[in-house]
Amino acid sequence: MSADQKPLVVNSNILQMEYAVRGPIPKRAAVLEKQGKKIIPCHIGNPQALGQVPMTYLRQVLSLVEDPAKIERERQLKSLFEENPYSDLGDEDFISEDILQISEEILAASGTGMGAYTASKGHLFIREAVAEFIDQRDGYRPGKGIPADSESIFLTTGASQGVYFVVDLLIAEKNDGIMIPIPQYPLYSAAIKKVGGVQVNYYPDEERGWVFDRSILADAYKKAQKEGINVKAIVVINPGNPTGAVLDEASMLEVIEFARDHQLMIIADEVYQENIYHGKFHSFAKVLGKEQVSLVSLHSISKGFLGECGHRGGYLEIRNPPKIEGTSLDFVDLLNKQASVSLCSSTPGQVLTYLMVKPPSENNRTYQTYIREKETILKDLHEKALMVREAFKEMEGVECFGETGALYLFPRLGVLPGGTTDFDYCMALLEETGLCTVNGSGFGQKPGTQHLRIAFLPPKDLLKQVLPKWIQFHNRYVKG
Amino acid sequence: MSADQKPLVVNSNILQMEYAVRGPIPKRAAVLEKQGKKIIPCHIGNPQALGQVPMTYLRQVLSLVEDPAKIERERQLKSLFEENPYSDLGDEDFISEDILQISEEILAASGTGMGAYTASKGHLFIREAVAEFIDQRDGYRPGKGIPADSESIFLTTGASQGVYFVVDLLIAEKNDGIMIPIPQYPLYSAAIKKVGGVQVNYYPDEERGWVFDRSILADAYKKAQKEGINVKAIVVINPGNPTGAVLDEASMLEVIEFARDHQLMIIADEVYQENIYHGKFHSFAKVLGKEQVSLVSLHSISKGFLGECGHRGGYLEIRNPPKIEGTSLDFVDLLNKQASVSLCSSTPGQVLTYLMVKPPSENNRTYQTYIREKETILKDLHEKALMVREAFKEMEGVECFGETGALYLFPRLGVLPGGTTDFDYCMALLEETGLCTVNGSGFGQKPGTQHLRIAFLPPKDLLKQVLPKWIQFHNRYVKG
Repeated sequence: MSADQKPLVVNSNILQMEYAVRGPIPKRAAVLEKQGKKIIPCHIGNPQALGQVPMTYLRQVLSLVEDPAKIERERQLKSLFEENPYSDLGDEDFISEDILQISEEILAASGTGMGAYTASKGHLFIREAVAEFIDQRDGYRPGKGIPADSESIFLTTGASQGVYFVVDLLIAEKNDGIMIPIPQYPLYSAAIKKVGGVQVNYYPDEERGWVFDRSILADAYKKAQKEGINVKAIVVINPGNPTGAVLDEASMLEVIEFARDHQLMIIADEVYQENIYHGKFHSFAKVLGKEQVSLVSLHSISKGFLGECGHRGGYLEIRNPPKIEGTSLDFVDLLNKQASVSLCSSTPGQVLTYLMVKPPSENNRTYQTYIREKETILKDLHEKALMVREAFKEMEGVECFGETGALYLFPRLGVLPGGTTDFDYCMALLEETGLCTVNGSGFGQKPGTQHLRIAFLPPKDLLKQVLPKWIQFHNRYVKG
Repeated sequence: MSADQKPLVVNSNILQMEYAVRGPIPKRAAVLEKQGKKIIPCHIGNPQALGQVPMTYLRQVLSLVEDPAKIERERQLKSLFEENPYSDLGDEDFISEDILQISEEILAASGTGMGAYTASKGHLFIREAVAEFIDQRDGYRPGKGIPADSESIFLTTGASQGVYFVVDLLIAEKNDGIMIPIPQYPLYSAAIKKVGGVQVNYYPDEERGWVFDRSILADAYKKAQKEGINVKAIVVINPGNPTGAVLDEASMLEVIEFARDHQLMIIADEVYQENIYHGKFHSFAKVLGKEQVSLVSLHSISKGFLGECGHRGGYLEIRNPPKIEGTSLDFVDLLNKQASVSLCSSTPGQVLTYLMVKPPSENNRTYQTYIREKETILKDLHEKALMVREAFKEMEGVECFGETGALYLFPRLGVLPGGTTDFDYCMALLEETGLCTVNGSGFGQKPGTQHLRIAFLPPKDLLKQVLPKWIQFHNRYVKG
């Protein structure tokens, strides 16, 4: 920059926006890594960065739709080998016929292959498959509940794009606010900050496993109202991020009634719906039933047992979209406008979303491989969570509340030595052990408490090595 | 929605934002298509939707990195066939070894494969390749110009995400403005509107082939200043969208001097840099040289001869990033913050960006195929543009200025019958012929003129069928 160039005044909202998951601790980790230190990246739910293997079904199909010439060639090669007495290749050395057929069906349904922009909302056949998936997951039957509608579904660039679409629309004035749980995934605070809205905190009860009731919501709402804030929506993350806690149906019903009474939109972040290690996931759409409350639900290919973060796919579904003041439009029309100015989400993300909602179902080789891989990944995640929880027991003052869900644990650190914070703790933990976590204050926490979030993703061998070091570090650190 | 739910007040900027490329005409086309009418989608630069074939090099590599097990298997199959006296398969039935190696190199360089989030800016090895590409394209040599820096490069979700990043940052106050050419690609007006900034129009000289000089820029700037607008940047689209016009170096120098004198950032949309059918592309980075003006350049995998729109890849490069008022940060830091809250662009988009900037270079089968495909696509595009231009000559009053570049022509329609607009014209053209174009007013145009934009992408056979119908339609329409 030239000496006489004057400094630029930029959008102060972006200047003030914070995003701890990619903040100072991971930045420091990147510096240490460049210096040769072995870093264990547990600051973010990025399973394949820590060795989680992609699902064969998804990748075989994606690979074929990207290079469709390989579909017919696979059949030719297979038949050449079958006829050939010298060949010792078997069926399992070739891609199964059902995978070839699904790939052909996707290409045919897309009409334009992988290289063309799709409709702004995403391919219709994929949105229809998402609607079917929702109905099946929630046990929809005629007369029971409301079926999902493909026109109210948007295929998005990860779930985060859906969050931005909705928050950008909701914040119309500086005193418009959105309720978010504390602790929260900082995407929400960042999205609200970015458009200059107000973050209205509510505090799930940590010691009761992060559940909440009407009075907790009402307290937050009343406080905001007193401050002149116009609350427009409430965010619920279930299973929780960063807490990992799984919401019970009672808490969900409280949210729905509360939202109805105060005309709030519910934003249900359900990207971890497959990461429940016992019990069953209840979607907000299902619990909502015929209640006329506006509900936005988000899902993603990045989490669950797919872990396809890099492909940036997901969807947003809206129910009971509100009408828009002063127009003949509703919320779906405006979401569509939002989607159209970014043209469309990527086709690989869309295809993987399709495969997420359409797993193999016939009892054949593809199905068996899929189930085996899925169960291995989920079992492994659960065992790793338990290993980390076990380690907490040996750390002085550390407590971890709530059932295990999502990909995270959010232990309370107890009393830290005078003047130090969970940020200092995480930084020191990183420097000493290479374990990269995020301090609780990056997600928000009740004043006076200290936490950290760890994604329980490293391979077990690595956990076995690093957990004792962490225990040692901890018990020394808290002594001051 | 329940009867007693009150209408929602939403962000009025988004309500007012318009995006003609996905506006009422394409929406009407979608309705007609559902009714069984054959639609020719020329409203958007979406080549593969109109039969342009993907480049083999890009897709073979992408397919392999998505399913890495196929790399080694390809080698095994090939050697099995080579040893087998019964086989009549040749080398060309298998993927060449250099493609296999590039795929392995990409996977190794990524460190984490395709399923993991990357750094917010995108993979470093890809940003380094982009920097090399820029240096090579612009003939950088030590002592001549400034080399590109991988830390100032961001891999983005198409070029459009880069535009939003920059515009979102620049608009700090309601009276902050950005100069854009009229006609313009409506992404710019939408991005400015979305964050409540002011669009400051400048008017390239249509009859001189859409060139412009200092006085044209100064007129627009002075007018804005008088209205209390704080102009912060100037957008230049080269080759032009929607005009297709290719900018001469003289106009570029005028922009640079003008930007320097008024401390404006230049936003150079160069996504059509390969779509020049005679002559040579000059990048702003090259023409800028050592001049200390802030420059953002955008490029994309969606256009050129790749046409990989659906994969949503691109990059943004910034030179001379301004310091940020009141902080120790510069513009790169804030772009990084923007990128981090959307986590990262998709890995397939990143990989295709890598392959765009790293075409095959050895004179082997891969190279020969690449060059043949590239030349076929570009020759075909040029011939189609000429066919459409020829048709204009038979349309009463139609004139088309400027060299042919990009994927578009932007003819001036002459006098339309009393009271009708180019919107009416395009709608009637759609209803009669199925040809979906966008009216000039969707891009902005000098008051009193009427235009349309057509993407010259349909296969020649289809053009041969539809152009006579258009001529007929036109000559009848203008008679009123």
